[in-house]
Amino acid sequence: MSELLVTDFLERARRHHPRRPIVGYDDGVEVVRYDYGAYAGRVARLAGALRALGVRPGDRVASLCWNHHRHLELYAAVPLAGAVLHTLNLRLSAEEIAYIAGHADDRLIIADADLAHLLDGVHPELGVLDSGDAYEALVAAGPELTEPPPRSEHDLAVLCYTSGTTGRPKGVGYTHRGLSLHTFAACLADGHAISARDTVLHVVPLFHANGWGVPFAATMAGAAQVLPGPHPGVERIAEIVERERVTYVGMVPTVAVDLVAHVRAHGGDLSSLRALVLGGSTPSLDLIRDLDELGVPVFQGWGMTEISPMATFTRPPAEIGDAQERHRNAQTQGRLLPGLRWRIVDDAGRELPWDGTAAGELHVRGPWVATSYYLGEAPDRFADGWLRTGDVATIDAEGRLRVVDRVKDLIKSGGEWISSVALEQALLADPDVADAAVVAVPHRRWQERPLAVAVLRDGARATGAQLLERLAERVPRWWLPEDVVVVDALPRTSVGKTDKRRLRSRYAGRT
Amino acid sequence: MSELLVTDFLERARRHHPRRPIVGYDDGVEVVRYDYGAYAGRVARLAGALRALGVRPGDRVASLCWNHHRHLELYAAVPLAGAVLHTLNLRLSAEEIAYIAGHADDRLIIADADLAHLLDGVHPELGVLDSGDAYEALVAAGPELTEPPPRSEHDLAVLCYTSGTTGRPKGVGYTHRGLSLHTFAACLADGHAISARDTVLHVVPLFHANGWGVPFAATMAGAAQVLPGPHPGVERIAEIVERERVTYVGMVPTVAVDLVAHVRAHGGDLSSLRALVLGGSTPSLDLIRDLDELGVPVFQGWGMTEISPMATFTRPPAEIGDAQERHRNAQTQGRLLPGLRWRIVDDAGRELPWDGTAAGELHVRGPWVATSYYLGEAPDRFADGWLRTGDVATIDAEGRLRVVDRVKDLIKSGGEWISSVALEQALLADPDVADAAVVAVPHRRWQERPLAVAVLRDGARATGAQLLERLAERVPRWWLPEDVVVVDALPRTSVGKTDKRRLRSRYAGRT
Repeated sequence: MSELLVTDFLERARRHHPRRPIVGYDDGVEVVRYDYGAYAGRVARLAGALRALGVRPGDRVASLCWNHHRHLELYAAVPLAGAVLHTLNLRLSAEEIAYIAGHADDRLIIADADLAHLLDGVHPELGVLDSGDAYEALVAAGPELTEPPPRSEHDLAVLCYTSGTTGRPKGVGYTHRGLSLHTFAACLADGHAISARDTVLHVVPLFHANGWGVPFAATMAGAAQVLPGPHPGVERIAEIVERERVTYVGMVPTVAVDLVAHVRAHGGDLSSLRALVLGGSTPSLDLIRDLDELGVPVFQGWGMTEISPMATFTRPPAEIGDAQERHRNAQTQGRLLPGLRWRIVDDAGRELPWDGTAAGELHVRGPWVATSYYLGEAPDRFADGWLRTGDVATIDAEGRLRVVDRVKDLIKSGGEWISSVALEQALLADPDVADAAVVAVPHRRWQERPLAVAVLRDGARATGAQLLERLAERVPRWWLPEDVVVVDALPRTSVGKTDKRRLRSRYAGRT
Repeated sequence: MSELLVTDFLERARRHHPRRPIVGYDDGVEVVRYDYGAYAGRVARLAGALRALGVRPGDRVASLCWNHHRHLELYAAVPLAGAVLHTLNLRLSAEEIAYIAGHADDRLIIADADLAHLLDGVHPELGVLDSGDAYEALVAAGPELTEPPPRSEHDLAVLCYTSGTTGRPKGVGYTHRGLSLHTFAACLADGHAISARDTVLHVVPLFHANGWGVPFAATMAGAAQVLPGPHPGVERIAEIVERERVTYVGMVPTVAVDLVAHVRAHGGDLSSLRALVLGGSTPSLDLIRDLDELGVPVFQGWGMTEISPMATFTRPPAEIGDAQERHRNAQTQGRLLPGLRWRIVDDAGRELPWDGTAAGELHVRGPWVATSYYLGEAPDRFADGWLRTGDVATIDAEGRLRVVDRVKDLIKSGGEWISSVALEQALLADPDVADAAVVAVPHRRWQERPLAVAVLRDGARATGAQLLERLAERVPRWWLPEDVVVVDALPRTSVGKTDKRRLRSRYAGRT
């Protein structure tokens, strides 16, 4: 039997696409331009050096890095050495990182110099290595690994912790098999369709759930890869897209909103993009329209750290034609990738119909879906091979997903459910509102009531009362939030999502 | 672990693409038009009926059928019932079929009425069922199979015999795992890119190596599928492409040559095609140019029954632009699909460089490549996980394959090798030549010398001597065949390839 190993993609790129480029930037300046041939050579030496350092098969080797070419090298070298790449999230606090690195029992950490202070409380057995000179010394010294240790397709290749909004972070281990199949799915014509003709730009952090799987997909396909370096702002992203003629990029909606504003204010040529993929949270219809107006083909993918992460893609079905339909389609979370199964179930565990109306918790299963957390934590999230996603969703007759809410973000008011996501979308439709979040606050009579927090657009001056008045025209009366609080910015989690836990505790006493 | 089962694609089509159509023709008349929802229902009842008939997990259930919707139903129903679909080749003689059905120990055969005479010597335990009324009675009676028997991804789903040009036919078993991965590969953006937006026409016989894998790929993608029915001639093919707005079709070069001639003579709208894929033998540059002139995007895939069958696809690399380059690219056998590995080796087993010049036997390995024949025959074709393809090939620096010859068709003249394929291509470049074959004939002094057999185009009147004279201007002197014999038609094997074995024996005494 031929084992499914992600490291075969490296070998493929080396033999089949040796001259395709990998380009690294730092603050808008090109710092490296090499090809898969050179990349594979450096990776083989790095893998050899890791083995020589004492890294054994199965060991966790962690990265705490921005999106640069050395981080991309670690993606290939650590699994080639038979070890597990543990991508640490640089948005976390030193305390959180200490917990996670300890829980994962990382034996070695490779860290960017400007992030090293986050590792003050961490003492891995083989030390902390600087991703600059010390890393280059490793690559220079490394005896090329020509005979990788034997690996099974069931061995872990990557490990990533998810900062759930409840409890401690939990580890998700990705096997060679799961990542290989996820990579195939990402390159399907009906998936992200990543191909040898693409130039992908890594805006999604590589520490965030395999960088959405794009590093592996691009390597398998032999696509050109561009790394923006530390602190990639939208000015830099726009510059790089134009200079490198980037064809594929993924990002969260908040970054896309800033990118649109930047290009409108300062110009910029995004015409090379064949796909801008939004993920992480539901984009507003306005954002989709804005991107479409700029001529950027926009898609949405939905996923989770526990799903490697991609589960869906909004490639339009055969029947969809006009712009309005296209926009509405892009605002759904899309269709399930082949290889996976899903279902929506009610509180009693009964499966619900795919009618676009019935909403229930989404369960997902398949070869790249976790069936447990690393070291077996939180087993209640998994049942009979299904991952209970914690998302409440509908599925329509065309098989398109719409995430209504997180199970725990739904607002239960007087026995009826109110969707925080639906209220947020209604608020975002107000021309004065740039960003919005809705959370449940305790209420004596109704158990819970919604409370909205809004960020105004530049130059807008509406008060919370005015926003509430306008919102009343767009939503059922009983959905209306107790209050709309205008703030300068929403609190964010380490992966850039609105931190609703913090909002809930801040506004708990409001009613 | 989630098992990889091809029957999951049926479930996917049923749930995700219930309204996408499957259309069947018979002699140009539409005889059935239903959808994946109805297809899945019929398949589930057929699978239930097969179980009720006594078909057990692992049993071989054979088909002897043209390309019609019931054959496509067997593709899903037999594996769903836990059994193995054995596709019998209707071009074989009754004697050959008797040998193969006996060797495979088929327990049940479903056959078209006009082919039943080919089964005179076959007596399967559960009998021979007519694919018409008896089949419909099964589907009508079938208790829907709601709980398929447990299957491992390593279980066989399909079995196909390959009529090698030496020795007895050999069986190739396809596992659920191998077929699932082959299906993913077929749907890659850099592969055949079969998607939900496609309408595929099954011109390639479904009994021929999984119909090139397209039935599974189209089902996974939710593509519309069109079956042309018995004896699909090029007039019917052209009509159906036009009527159904077919986007994807595969065929052997000889059928494509006839299709071009037909469309030129009688007109026809092929503009819906996004891909016409040639496979089975190397097309001439003329054919590629002709199709391009008709506005048909033409690609080539190379494969073998032992590879499920697809190994390559000629999607152009990022750099290729103009028509001439595109044609040349389409005349190569293309690039290796992700998931597979290959190498070319010399007689001593040493690996040769990928320089487009060094020619050696092609070896292939990977999850959908056979590692043995059914029941363990001809083990010398397999070594250390590699399939020895018997094809002599070069691979260029861009990773593109060019098949030079079959190992056994190479002509060894005075210690030097002459490629029969290169001579055939040179002959085909003669405007008077419609088809050509070159074989080795024994020679007292040179051991072997090439001998050419040519079929003239309609209206052409060149003699063999004239063709030989013109050929002398296009090939090295020592390549020149001993003779060019003009014939009315070339003998064909059961899968439509030139029968060189018969030519060799017919012309053995020519020098």
